[in-house]
Amino acid sequence: MTSQMRRIALARRPSGVPVPEDFAMETGPIPTPGAGEVLIEVSHHSLDPYMRGRMDDAGSYAASLELGETMIGQGIGRVLASEAEGFAQGDVVTGMTGWASHAVLPGDQLRVLDPSVPATTALGVLGMPGFTAWTALREYGRPKAGETLVIAAATGPVGAMVGQLAKAAGLRTVAIAGGDQKCQLALEKFGFDAAIDHRAHSEANSLRAALAEVCPDGVDIYWENVGGKILEAVTPLMNVHGRIPVCGTIAWYGGSDEAANRLPQVWRAILTKRLSVNGFIIFDHWDGFPAFLEEVAPKIAAGEIAYLEDITEGLENAPQTFIGMLTGGNTGKTIIKV
Amino acid sequence: MTSQMRRIALARRPSGVPVPEDFAMETGPIPTPGAGEVLIEVSHHSLDPYMRGRMDDAGSYAASLELGETMIGQGIGRVLASEAEGFAQGDVVTGMTGWASHAVLPGDQLRVLDPSVPATTALGVLGMPGFTAWTALREYGRPKAGETLVIAAATGPVGAMVGQLAKAAGLRTVAIAGGDQKCQLALEKFGFDAAIDHRAHSEANSLRAALAEVCPDGVDIYWENVGGKILEAVTPLMNVHGRIPVCGTIAWYGGSDEAANRLPQVWRAILTKRLSVNGFIIFDHWDGFPAFLEEVAPKIAAGEIAYLEDITEGLENAPQTFIGMLTGGNTGKTIIKV
Repeated sequence: MTSQMRRIALARRPSGVPVPEDFAMETGPIPTPGAGEVLIEVSHHSLDPYMRGRMDDAGSYAASLELGETMIGQGIGRVLASEAEGFAQGDVVTGMTGWASHAVLPGDQLRVLDPSVPATTALGVLGMPGFTAWTALREYGRPKAGETLVIAAATGPVGAMVGQLAKAAGLRTVAIAGGDQKCQLALEKFGFDAAIDHRAHSEANSLRAALAEVCPDGVDIYWENVGGKILEAVTPLMNVHGRIPVCGTIAWYGGSDEAANRLPQVWRAILTKRLSVNGFIIFDHWDGFPAFLEEVAPKIAAGEIAYLEDITEGLENAPQTFIGMLTGGNTGKTIIKV
Repeated sequence: MTSQMRRIALARRPSGVPVPEDFAMETGPIPTPGAGEVLIEVSHHSLDPYMRGRMDDAGSYAASLELGETMIGQGIGRVLASEAEGFAQGDVVTGMTGWASHAVLPGDQLRVLDPSVPATTALGVLGMPGFTAWTALREYGRPKAGETLVIAAATGPVGAMVGQLAKAAGLRTVAIAGGDQKCQLALEKFGFDAAIDHRAHSEANSLRAALAEVCPDGVDIYWENVGGKILEAVTPLMNVHGRIPVCGTIAWYGGSDEAANRLPQVWRAILTKRLSVNGFIIFDHWDGFPAFLEEVAPKIAAGEIAYLEDITEGLENAPQTFIGMLTGGNTGKTIIKV
């Protein structure tokens, strides 16, 4: 066992899409757990779009990362040493380890994993992305059988779960994804009723025409993962009393796509169509997590809910993989095998 | 009594802010009520911003007006002849008379007015504007004592009512209005805690700084009457879990103010601040109208709720008065005395 740990730190605040120079690999001594703490050897950590927001100076969901701080994120791993009640050496646990080979965390911020499902599901379909889909579809989407739901990034861990939950609730589900392969995946693995390749439509108008064709009764729920061209395409198709849960705006993380002012059109649609647009951050809803696990974990164990993981080996590859994820280069839940 | 009626028709679809040539005064024979109908001599009719939307070809709240059709709107007047049960000659009633000297309407679309309050209140504080404020503040604003509410067009009939209801619910109320006189009115007649003259701030940044000063705890409810520069100024001041009832976007009715794309910033604020943005049209909520009247009419009769009317004489002046209202030239509920 090496006596050094590795971690990836924020080296510089990115402008738009991050570049490799915004990250730095640091090494240092493996920390020792204090009273109530646990030392974990991280086997996998998660990469999620929200991490991009934390790299900015302010104004995102939560406190910004400081320069030099370890990149934030959920991980899983084995307990190497425990000074906390309820954790023993060898337990497989999950918590906010960050992008690192080792982490020390308080026991009350860790959870021992259910051995009946693969451990990595704790980062995706049974973790924050799955819980996000489960919570916000009910609370802000308010799906009703017979309605139509449209979602972009549809094969991502949130999109795939939203699509399956909506389909199970009797909705028509329409996927927007980048490329033929992801569209096939949306249809075949995740059971969407239709899939549209946004790369085949460089203009919002063209994308809108394609969407209109597969949404003959309009759109009741547009799950917002992306913003940009796709929002512009969907807005005019929204039905009266439609709902838009706003989960992410990844198209704008790079600061591009600012050519024309589309705010009047979107705001007017909110008014005239009596839309309900709700921003939400899953961190506000953790008290529902046990209910989520109780309902969904058995369905994962039974193979009733499909999921897909995109695992890259090597902590050193996390920055490039993260950059690729932000630009649509991944397929499924993005995970780093440390 | 003249045997001719006068009405103002839509002559042309406006581009942006209407001009007088978009309207035409028409005369014709006074119609005769059929079975179940009532003939009304209109004494006053209402001018409201929503009428601008009806002049467009499509895409607004409800069916567009046809060219040549009488401009839509609520009016009050005396019954000249009744073929409907429950209405007698001389009754003072209200209904959708349009911009006209006379109207024939089915009895089930009319209401006899409460004589304990001035009849014109049926067009404003006890009509659609007051009901809009009362309904949507509760349903989409969800005010809590100690919070801060910001509203533009604050001395208009919706704004003045929202401000007074919010103040009575224990909120800090901040008015945005055009000019010193309206700011004084907001403070003195309608009891706002602070008032800002948007004409003193040509840039959103300057307006934002002025707002920030009078909203030391941020903004919990922004009641959207206007859009444009004011939305841009308020968005960054919104608190987490803030609410934006979207009642109108009058700043954009003229199609101007489209220089830069502000959609990414607003959409990102909806996400990161977990805002709840709800469009609504009061026509969806009429079943609550009796409860509104029951609660608010006695307060009007007792002088506990202030209101202000801006009455212009002469049906022929309706177009110019309407144009003036859309550009902030009125003070209070705009009414035409036919």
